[in-house]
Amino acid sequence: MSNSIGRLFRVTSFGESHGPVVGVVVDGCPAGLSVDQGTIQRDLDRRRAVGQAGATPRREADAVRILSGMYEGCTTGAPVCMVIDNANVESSNYLPYPRTPRPGHADFTAKIRYGGFNDPRGGGRFSGRITAGFVMAGALARAALGRIGVEVHAHTVAIGEVEAPVCEPTRVRELNRRNALSCCDDRSAESMVQHISEAEARGDSVGGVVECVVLGLPPGVGEPVFSGLESEISHAVFSIPAVKGIEFGGGFALSRLHGSAANDPYEFCGDSVRSVKNDSGGILGGLSTGMPLVLRAAFKPTPSISLPQQTVDLEERTTAELIVRGRHDACIVPRGVVVVESMVACVLCDLCLRRGLIPGVMV
Amino acid sequence: MSNSIGRLFRVTSFGESHGPVVGVVVDGCPAGLSVDQGTIQRDLDRRRAVGQAGATPRREADAVRILSGMYEGCTTGAPVCMVIDNANVESSNYLPYPRTPRPGHADFTAKIRYGGFNDPRGGGRFSGRITAGFVMAGALARAALGRIGVEVHAHTVAIGEVEAPVCEPTRVRELNRRNALSCCDDRSAESMVQHISEAEARGDSVGGVVECVVLGLPPGVGEPVFSGLESEISHAVFSIPAVKGIEFGGGFALSRLHGSAANDPYEFCGDSVRSVKNDSGGILGGLSTGMPLVLRAAFKPTPSISLPQQTVDLEERTTAELIVRGRHDACIVPRGVVVVESMVACVLCDLCLRRGLIPGVMV
Amino acid sequence: MSNSIGRLFRVTSFGESHGPVVGVVVDGCPAGLSVDQGTIQRDLDRRRAVGQAGATPRREADAVRILSGMYEGCTTGAPVCMVIDNANVESSNYLPYPRTPRPGHADFTAKIRYGGFNDPRGGGRFSGRITAGFVMAGALARAALGRIGVEVHAHTVAIGEVEAPVCEPTRVRELNRRNALSCCDDRSAESMVQHISEAEARGDSVGGVVECVVLGLPPGVGEPVFSGLESEISHAVFSIPAVKGIEFGGGFALSRLHGSAANDPYEFCGDSVRSVKNDSGGILGGLSTGMPLVLRAAFKPTPSISLPQQTVDLEERTTAELIVRGRHDACIVPRGVVVVESMVACVLCDLCLRRGLIPGVMV
Amino acid sequence: MSNSIGRLFRVTSFGESHGPVVGVVVDGCPAGLSVDQGTIQRDLDRRRAVGQAGATPRREADAVRILSGMYEGCTTGAPVCMVIDNANVESSNYLPYPRTPRPGHADFTAKIRYGGFNDPRGGGRFSGRITAGFVMAGALARAALGRIGVEVHAHTVAIGEVEAPVCEPTRVRELNRRNALSCCDDRSAESMVQHISEAEARGDSVGGVVECVVLGLPPGVGEPVFSGLESEISHAVFSIPAVKGIEFGGGFALSRLHGSAANDPYEFCGDSVRSVKNDSGGILGGLSTGMPLVLRAAFKPTPSISLPQQTVDLEERTTAELIVRGRHDACIVPRGVVVVESMVACVLCDLCLRRGLIPGVMV
Repeated sequence: MSNSIGRLFRVTSFGESHGPVVGVVVDGCPAGLSVDQGTIQRDLDRRRAVGQAGATPRREADAVRILSGMYEGCTTGAPVCMVIDNANVESSNYLPYPRTPRPGHADFTAKIRYGGFNDPRGGGRFSGRITAGFVMAGALARAALGRIGVEVHAHTVAIGEVEAPVCEPTRVRELNRRNALSCCDDRSAESMVQHISEAEARGDSVGGVVECVVLGLPPGVGEPVFSGLESEISHAVFSIPAVKGIEFGGGFALSRLHGSAANDPYEFCGDSVRSVKNDSGGILGGLSTGMPLVLRAAFKPTPSISLPQQTVDLEERTTAELIVRGRHDACIVPRGVVVVESMVACVLCDLCLRRGLIPGVMV
Repeated sequence: MSNSIGRLFRVTSFGESHGPVVGVVVDGCPAGLSVDQGTIQRDLDRRRAVGQAGATPRREADAVRILSGMYEGCTTGAPVCMVIDNANVESSNYLPYPRTPRPGHADFTAKIRYGGFNDPRGGGRFSGRITAGFVMAGALARAALGRIGVEVHAHTVAIGEVEAPVCEPTRVRELNRRNALSCCDDRSAESMVQHISEAEARGDSVGGVVECVVLGLPPGVGEPVFSGLESEISHAVFSIPAVKGIEFGGGFALSRLHGSAANDPYEFCGDSVRSVKNDSGGILGGLSTGMPLVLRAAFKPTPSISLPQQTVDLEERTTAELIVRGRHDACIVPRGVVVVESMVACVLCDLCLRRGLIPGVMV
Repeated sequence: MSNSIGRLFRVTSFGESHGPVVGVVVDGCPAGLSVDQGTIQRDLDRRRAVGQAGATPRREADAVRILSGMYEGCTTGAPVCMVIDNANVESSNYLPYPRTPRPGHADFTAKIRYGGFNDPRGGGRFSGRITAGFVMAGALARAALGRIGVEVHAHTVAIGEVEAPVCEPTRVRELNRRNALSCCDDRSAESMVQHISEAEARGDSVGGVVECVVLGLPPGVGEPVFSGLESEISHAVFSIPAVKGIEFGGGFALSRLHGSAANDPYEFCGDSVRSVKNDSGGILGGLSTGMPLVLRAAFKPTPSISLPQQTVDLEERTTAELIVRGRHDACIVPRGVVVVESMVACVLCDLCLRRGLIPGVMV
Repeated sequence: MSNSIGRLFRVTSFGESHGPVVGVVVDGCPAGLSVDQGTIQRDLDRRRAVGQAGATPRREADAVRILSGMYEGCTTGAPVCMVIDNANVESSNYLPYPRTPRPGHADFTAKIRYGGFNDPRGGGRFSGRITAGFVMAGALARAALGRIGVEVHAHTVAIGEVEAPVCEPTRVRELNRRNALSCCDDRSAESMVQHISEAEARGDSVGGVVECVVLGLPPGVGEPVFSGLESEISHAVFSIPAVKGIEFGGGFALSRLHGSAANDPYEFCGDSVRSVKNDSGGILGGLSTGMPLVLRAAFKPTPSISLPQQTVDLEERTTAELIVRGRHDACIVPRGVVVVESMVACVLCDLCLRRGLIPGVMV
């Protein structure tokens, strides 16, 4: 239950890591949106990240197949079902985990929740692979947002303790695809790669932080009280496995400031109102201010590591040592960049539809 | 739109700061829950926080009135409507703000969103006063959770740069009501009071961090993918005005660790499985682990300050200086403690109902 | 649970027959809608129906009180809470019913459903009195629909076996308020009054049929597959106590025709497409055709009758004879006319909002 | 939008008549439900109805493919995606309809609604073929209901003016599969076949009525006010193309009775309470009484007929004559029987889950 998100742009995720497919149904996508299959594929390819530092050796085409909702190159207004096939599966590694659950993974909690009936192969429904569905949905959302001039761009701002210098929101789109890390600063990217490689060499993993900026969002988007921008975006972003924290604008740092420093004074910029700085991250009262929306998501390190770990044997009811086998990423943060973009895009598409900013039929 | 939250335990908020009432309708509260009016009132009184350092001089009884859904001291299964009256209102101070919006408040964004028709008095629908409704709903949720042994306790862990030492989750309930700050460490509380007072004296304000722990939550609660615990809780907590960040367990600090340090190894504790440490904050795969659930919410400083601020005059279309009048808190963090508890309780009550852990009729 | 209906125009009902109030919260009402309190009251007065043939002798002012969401005579975009007080309650008559449930009422089913905790006074949550909340919500919906030229009118077409002749949809609005029965044909109305009076004199009751027409609805309104017009409207109309059947256009009679007779041929009428007849009731594929929407709702006879009835004594576990006391209507159909209009209006307002036909802010 | 239905047992429909697949995602199906692929296929085969009187000559295997949510023969608690392929498509017949819309079909309304972007081939999203998805979802729902002893059975009670005699609810299951019409009375079935054949021979079509009974439903199921049984069931059943009316128990006939005749007196039957008759159709106050739930759905005649019909030419803006080509059923009522069963089962599964009667994990 609750594999759907969104009220008017409604995304339903399905599929498991080692089942036939991973897929998504998008209901509420406006009719008449011209979406090239290649557009969706480009985002999937960014998520696939073959050859990236720290990326899984699992190799799959991840080629999108559109099963419904498109006709003659345009959305029809009917639900769009999209899938990728799971071609390259090695399930045998996963057989021990229902008995000796991997620390940091959902093996134990899922077993309890689903009475042991959950599919354990490759993490099943809890695999990061299901985010391919998020990306396919996000591609539609971004196409719709693009028609009203709203753009969503994310970048890697930290890997472990390596932090990139601050990047102007407006410059992210030109800088975030220059390296495999999706980091806007090449020098930091090099250090990040090195940090990941060192961990990988030891059989360990690292986490990091993704920052996402939204440009072109007009003021007044959001549905307070319970569907304000922070509420809706955090809801979606925490659906990405491994995210453990989120902050908007100044975020946690704001809590250490005085109001006189934290408040964003207003000014006119030509005919439009803007704030001199943007510590609110483009959101006040759950509503967009018209300034760039800025948020950061903290990813914990990939829980799959090759080092021996302590777990329990649920049959013997003893402590046990575990070596996690199977293919995994030493760092999933760079692959998470497009996933964050996708979820943020889905939320904004939904809220812009609710606000009437995106028409039901694109013409 | 979207003044409701929850799927089975559904909370609908209504009311404005200076309208007749602030209220809430709770639909889906199990029948047969014996709730003393005093229980609700006690939580409201904690939110009211008269006489606290930095608290608003606005004085109101905030006495709960139950308009429906209770009969002979028990919930009936019908929607419970509860209100408090707005007795002590001084609206004239707020008249200038639709024209010269206050920095850090929703004056500007709400005016755009609602075409100028929003009620500006006391911030209207965007006032922190509407959280009284959250607290009344939370009192019902906590009563229901209490019947299955689940407790929600929050405390102030930072005010500005003053941080309290770490407090064991299991000790929060005995320590968090010993001072007006709801801080578990008395010495820190004193420094916090001083920090607030200094800011207040300058006409300034401060922010802070609230930590919330949940005890007694059985493993396997949560509805992944899009209704995992982090998703649902963050959604609710960001509905509290001034919250700009949230993290679970190790949160942002986790992103700087290696997997070998971040993963929580399992062990047996008698017959039950627990983790040796709890950096996941009691959540894996969006599901509860059975360990204490731990989250932290960052509050920005109260945007209402007495110092002169730069804003714009939307009629003259010029920059303008603004002095915010009206009653306000120099720090709303201590009053936010019970509000965080309430929203977390509402979410958990909803998820426990979905999981079948709370029966539809309490007997 | 499920005391709410609608996706964007969201109506939450609360209150019991003998509690402090009966009320409603409307979330999603566009800002800037100028609604006179008198407009709401007029609809409430039509429901109140004092002095009508067969109407309950319960006498109450049923004066609407607006608790939130309005400012300076306009909706603000915030949730609108409206209540009427329950002034004139005589609860003692209802005390036996949890033990000896009234046939045709919800006494037995509600007792099972809520474990005996439901409020039995006056039928509690199952009283027809809660439809006063529907009417208050409907008044807002109709005001919004009126701004785009959509009108909803209902009339009594049958009382028991007395049927009124067919009335052209476009003539309902000028004819349906000419008599207390809301019947468009005065002569039929007289027979209906007589039929009700005869039943009333015997301590019995009668049912009937209400027809509702919607004029001015543009083509293409509705959200198939699961939110087509018939689905959404029937959902709402069956929420009215005593409704046991609904049909659209030709309805059940259509099932006896051949396709060649049932299909509505198209023609041009000036520049616009219309159908020569309208057996589809203005709906094809769940979407409006632009022709008048026509539906009929069957009301069972009021279950409260003064004649002795057979029931069970749930304590003695025997059969028992029951005489229902308390005030009740010998026929609630005429009072149901405005309730049907209200529920249909709420649904159409929701669907027009989803379709973008009603703006989020009325200007 | 709104291709989903249900709150806890959530069915999302996708696919078009001539696209790659027709499918469904079921979210919220309890884990551990052992569902044989053959069970799903048997219901699909009943809907396929090859060789039935009046059935379409379109021949397809309609073989279910399960894409997710099942593992080792059981549901996992993850969303179950199921599809059938569209193998045998002849789209060219449908090309004229966006210009000369077929009377009785959604060609005109869908064109308006989706700005001409809807897929017109085979009726696209508005084809009766999408009900194959309903049937696959229904098979899961029925399996879950079966575990708590709830059964759903439907039968054909009228074809055109040919009506079958009343059948005791408890006898439907043994009688409704004895003939291709799903009619419990063989002699009536013969007359119905003849009636259909005559219409077919003339190039015409006929409608009819399906009755559905639910056995074994315990008392107290339903979620008033807005999710009572009639509301939820009618919502689902009107999603079936061609349904134009629904009634519960005595339905429209009840509106012509006196209360003294319409009320169902209670009696004891051993230890349990039942009503002497069941004119309420097993529902009071939106809640189940424990008696058989009985409803009837009126199907209009198939709008596709071979006779010449009047329509409009939307390009020339003139009246035009239309001959509908393509394969279609002269009567879809017998094929609708399993579809009605399926939708009713989905609703009841949802309501039983909300009520806690079906556990989240089947063991």
